[in-house]
Amino acid sequence: MDILDTLKKRRSIRTYQDREIPKDALKQIIDVARFSPTARNEQPWEFIVITDSRIFSKIAKLGDNARFVAYAKACIVVFCADTKYYLEDGCAATTNILNAAAALGIGSCWVAGDKKPYCEEVAALLGVPPELKLVSMVALGYPADPSDFKLGFKKSLRGMLHWEKF
Amino acid sequence: MDILDTLKKRRSIRTYQDREIPKDALKQIIDVARFSPTARNEQPWEFIVITDSRIFSKIAKLGDNARFVAYAKACIVVFCADTKYYLEDGCAATTNILNAAAALGIGSCWVAGDKKPYCEEVAALLGVPPELKLVSMVALGYPADPSDFKLGFKKSLRGMLHWEKF
Repeated sequence: MDILDTLKKRRSIRTYQDREIPKDALKQIIDVARFSPTARNEQPWEFIVITDSRIFSKIAKLGDNARFVAYAKACIVVFCADTKYYLEDGCAATTNILNAAAALGIGSCWVAGDKKPYCEEVAALLGVPPELKLVSMVALGYPADPSDFKLGFKKSLRGMLHWEKF
Repeated sequence: MDILDTLKKRRSIRTYQDREIPKDALKQIIDVARFSPTARNEQPWEFIVITDSRIFSKIAKLGDNARFVAYAKACIVVFCADTKYYLEDGCAATTNILNAAAALGIGSCWVAGDKKPYCEEVAALLGVPPELKLVSMVALGYPADPSDFKLGFKKSLRGMLHWEKF
């Protein structure tokens, strides 16, 4: 079960090799995000793919949780139109960005975007119209240590799986 | 790129074969959800896996968008503790439930749960404490037509992918 294994071994990776991500790989990642689940097939998403490290430095200064973005080799910023299910849809697309990256051997880490104090600043930085909503910023890079793709430390299956009733 | 292909061909499937889903497959699906991205590693999720069709009939009556649940072979209901990022985390887990199901040849469809008028009713039906938040209900079944796994009708990549700036 190679796919299940890849999905399970995807985890937040914040240190990267000094190696560019080919433009084609970034395109493949967005092409997977494009087919993510979306309520009423609205596909409210817009993806800004950044490779300019000057922008990473600006994003890294937005908050403590974004500092590692400074070292990314690419950053995908997800915005959505203000639909009823924009956050569900945007998070589904973000999840599949991480999954597709892992499938290509690329490490990633999700920085939250929804209702954050820096939403306006990110939109202004990237020329995004104010009516779109920031959902996430994903840092990407080949992992400094390829063995970083491994099972994370998680609660037990038994504790969270309930058959028929809670 | 088999994984990317599987992720892209996952789509909402609402008609199912009259064939049980092995308990082990359901466990594998939850085991993938368990490793989903989660802010601050909080893993706020709880998964109720239902195979009792009497419960499906009750869920199907909750709203027009849930009617097809009556024909499901299993239903996974996702609740989360009320954390800051419960909706992001719950949607990431839901997305990976759909992905893992697709990898196993099982069709699925996501019914929204967050802030819905039926949250309390679902919690009561499944014996879930009122402090947990309903995120989603996922219907599952082997697709009536296995060729249902195919690329959905989506907006073009060119329209949603922006390089460096919007």
